[in-house]
Amino acid sequence: MNEIDSLKSRLYDINAIGSALGIMSWDQQCLMPPGAAEARAAHLGILARMHHEMLVADETQRALEAAEAVAESAEVKAICRVTRRQLDQETKFPSELVEKLARLGAEAHEKWVEARANNDFKSFAPYLEQMFDIAKEQAECLGYKDHIYDALFDMYEEGAVKADADTMFNGIREPLTNLIKDIQESGNQPDDSFLTSDWPEADQSAFTEKLVRAIGYDFNRGRQDTAPHPFCTGWSVNDIRITTRFQSLLNSAVFGSLHEAGHGMYEQGSPNEWDRLPIAGGVSLGVHESQSRLWENIVGRSRPFWEHFYPSLQQTFPELQSRPLDEFHRAVNKAKPSLIRVEADEVTYNMHIMVRFELECALLSDEIQVKDLPDAWNAMYVLYLGVTPESDANGCMQDVHWSGGMIGYFPTYSMGNLLSAQIWKVLVADLGDVDEMMREGNFAPILDWLTEKIYSKGSIMTPKELITQVTGKPMGPEDYLVHIEAKYRGLYGLN
Amino acid sequence: MNEIDSLKSRLYDINAIGSALGIMSWDQQCLMPPGAAEARAAHLGILARMHHEMLVADETQRALEAAEAVAESAEVKAICRVTRRQLDQETKFPSELVEKLARLGAEAHEKWVEARANNDFKSFAPYLEQMFDIAKEQAECLGYKDHIYDALFDMYEEGAVKADADTMFNGIREPLTNLIKDIQESGNQPDDSFLTSDWPEADQSAFTEKLVRAIGYDFNRGRQDTAPHPFCTGWSVNDIRITTRFQSLLNSAVFGSLHEAGHGMYEQGSPNEWDRLPIAGGVSLGVHESQSRLWENIVGRSRPFWEHFYPSLQQTFPELQSRPLDEFHRAVNKAKPSLIRVEADEVTYNMHIMVRFELECALLSDEIQVKDLPDAWNAMYVLYLGVTPESDANGCMQDVHWSGGMIGYFPTYSMGNLLSAQIWKVLVADLGDVDEMMREGNFAPILDWLTEKIYSKGSIMTPKELITQVTGKPMGPEDYLVHIEAKYRGLYGLN
Repeated sequence: MNEIDSLKSRLYDINAIGSALGIMSWDQQCLMPPGAAEARAAHLGILARMHHEMLVADETQRALEAAEAVAESAEVKAICRVTRRQLDQETKFPSELVEKLARLGAEAHEKWVEARANNDFKSFAPYLEQMFDIAKEQAECLGYKDHIYDALFDMYEEGAVKADADTMFNGIREPLTNLIKDIQESGNQPDDSFLTSDWPEADQSAFTEKLVRAIGYDFNRGRQDTAPHPFCTGWSVNDIRITTRFQSLLNSAVFGSLHEAGHGMYEQGSPNEWDRLPIAGGVSLGVHESQSRLWENIVGRSRPFWEHFYPSLQQTFPELQSRPLDEFHRAVNKAKPSLIRVEADEVTYNMHIMVRFELECALLSDEIQVKDLPDAWNAMYVLYLGVTPESDANGCMQDVHWSGGMIGYFPTYSMGNLLSAQIWKVLVADLGDVDEMMREGNFAPILDWLTEKIYSKGSIMTPKELITQVTGKPMGPEDYLVHIEAKYRGLYGLN
Repeated sequence: MNEIDSLKSRLYDINAIGSALGIMSWDQQCLMPPGAAEARAAHLGILARMHHEMLVADETQRALEAAEAVAESAEVKAICRVTRRQLDQETKFPSELVEKLARLGAEAHEKWVEARANNDFKSFAPYLEQMFDIAKEQAECLGYKDHIYDALFDMYEEGAVKADADTMFNGIREPLTNLIKDIQESGNQPDDSFLTSDWPEADQSAFTEKLVRAIGYDFNRGRQDTAPHPFCTGWSVNDIRITTRFQSLLNSAVFGSLHEAGHGMYEQGSPNEWDRLPIAGGVSLGVHESQSRLWENIVGRSRPFWEHFYPSLQQTFPELQSRPLDEFHRAVNKAKPSLIRVEADEVTYNMHIMVRFELECALLSDEIQVKDLPDAWNAMYVLYLGVTPESDANGCMQDVHWSGGMIGYFPTYSMGNLLSAQIWKVLVADLGDVDEMMREGNFAPILDWLTEKIYSKGSIMTPKELITQVTGKPMGPEDYLVHIEAKYRGLYGLN
């Protein structure tokens, strides 16, 4: 074998363990019988340790160095770049830490599900404490220049530091606060009460499958299941799975499915010949989120989209037949400060992220303790959104992330919001009358454009390079603010 | 760590890879999107190779030897015995062979599903040829004394050789042939046509779940899904999963579920402290099958069982309301030479096994070639059962086993039939009026007895030791023949 093939062979082995972790985690969240939690935690812990050990092993180091020395094609160079980044990161973690994190992640996830169902923060708090302790340990292993947050944020978004998040939030905090205020004061509030009903699960399931199939999510290479917290995952470009959940608020399934399908189509769009190599799949969480938000919000919450799909939605749920399209379109775009991030509208969504980002920073730098989290959370919701959670289940326990050790992750959601608008602007400039395409249910040109420009690129470039190549500039708040102001001032008849 | 803990720690690691293989195979058969087949085959191949390499590694050898030297408790001795057997076996296989088998198994499984759906033996034949070639290679690696079959049979049933299977089949061939003849000639044939209908899948699913829950299969530590070929699998005593299938013949789901639940309860009955160690779970395929057959046939096809469940079956499927219990009971016990093994009655079932056993022997010793299989199969069905398959899909492609490399496995099914009756006889002698218990829907004493005597023993003894300890004698055909003669001569009013 030559150097390239040797490296690939090693990476395929590491990928097999990573894939086992992936499918076991997916199963844990979607299907696993409750009694299996302890064994699953043990399995995940052991496999995570093996994955780590294989990655940092001398054999991998040597194979990577040999390949780096001869790398010429963009593809091989990118494989080396991504592997180098991962290897350098993981080399800094002792394998005990990796196993501890995976094991605790599985246990804490179960505890989170239970504690959330019982609205019992106290029973979850010890796990969350350990999780933040591990995150601090990780950050110390990785090292950082200015703030402990830098080390963690970079794990999810290559090269990003806390100051980047500060800049991003500083750019949108005031305009959004003003827009929210104007919307709140408008006398022209949509009625969205009719979106809450006893919608049959089977119908929600069938309709969301139809929707995501129509926009291009490939069920031959994926499937949709239910999970308490919707997510997308995969272990091959040909096995990318999404989840959704069925609730009394119809938005939950419909926009949850569109969101995850956005992630899914990004993953499915990698070249088949990159399958099981580290350059397949999305390049960063921020870019990933740009695609979920693009399909969920910019496409899925647009009027032309529902001009196409609303008749069939009404057929599926006859209760909607008395509601005209405009009323529905305004209802699914209602902007209202609320408690739950994943159901938040496009305007208030970033405020939810700011709460989490600031609390993560405070917890990591010991400004607050885990036991104080519910109070701190509730105070921030009052400050940023003007609402007070009636329970910790709908407050600081609503998200899955921290229970799985994903700390330093949340700002990538806001990056996704900004990038979705920035990318859409270029797409529209290239494709022309996209509204008309959506009205006709013709989503292929949109998916094809995104596949060509972004999905098919996998991790061949860095996220920053990709964003600049696609949009002609680095990420900024301008296009997002233009989009959100235009859309919402229009919807609410504001000037 | 002491020697015992070191061995256990190594075995937990190996078990984690085995568990990953388990869940990936389960997913492949139950849920995987079709497009993922190639990637899954690659993953399974790599993980199987890793599993093999970890098992035969010097580190395992050393840990085992050290533990063997200090083993005192029955538990530790058994862990050493089972590991030693597996290690000695696997040491004989080159890791390329292991990976090839796993990879081909995954590919051939997909091909089998497709070829069976299209009744296209020709497209499956090349895979089957390779599979038999690999089996021969395995047998040569393992070595054998008298017949190539010995080496393969022993992999599934510790210490068993072809001559054992010959003895077993010689003991039942003639009595069964005579009984089948008498039954065929009886003028008192049950009508089972009403068991075939357009039974709604959701009702079949709900009813079978209710059934297996009632007999004691624990859904807190398991789940039931659908698969083209029903099976039971697991990767923790607390995560044992069964599958079933919904067809127009009601028997398929009902008795398929009871069968797999029998396997499942055996696995679920291992002590929790043995979880993820090689002594947890069933001791051999023959003993395993005795439990699936016991619950499927001896319990599940008994009259007292349906005295309890028939009213609720009738409620679920109102079409049955015009059919009295006796008619139903006779119908589900109808003995009739037929084409499909998994739907065969208790009397003719072993004839299906003899066909497969003899064909496996012939293929392994090159008396016939894979391309001749359909003709040979059909000829044997005429000979043993007096029926001719109308298609290869319902002929030599009906079973999953060969596509997954399970060659030398089939005789364990007949062992299960014999053992189920042999064990039941002792159970009844111990428990008294078991019929009355079943009539009352009180299955706990049966499950408790089996758990105490068999399930809780895992692999602490060899299968032969266990059988002798539980039934007071080695496996033999007598109790099975007494059971089957009494039951069927009764049902058909034969003398």
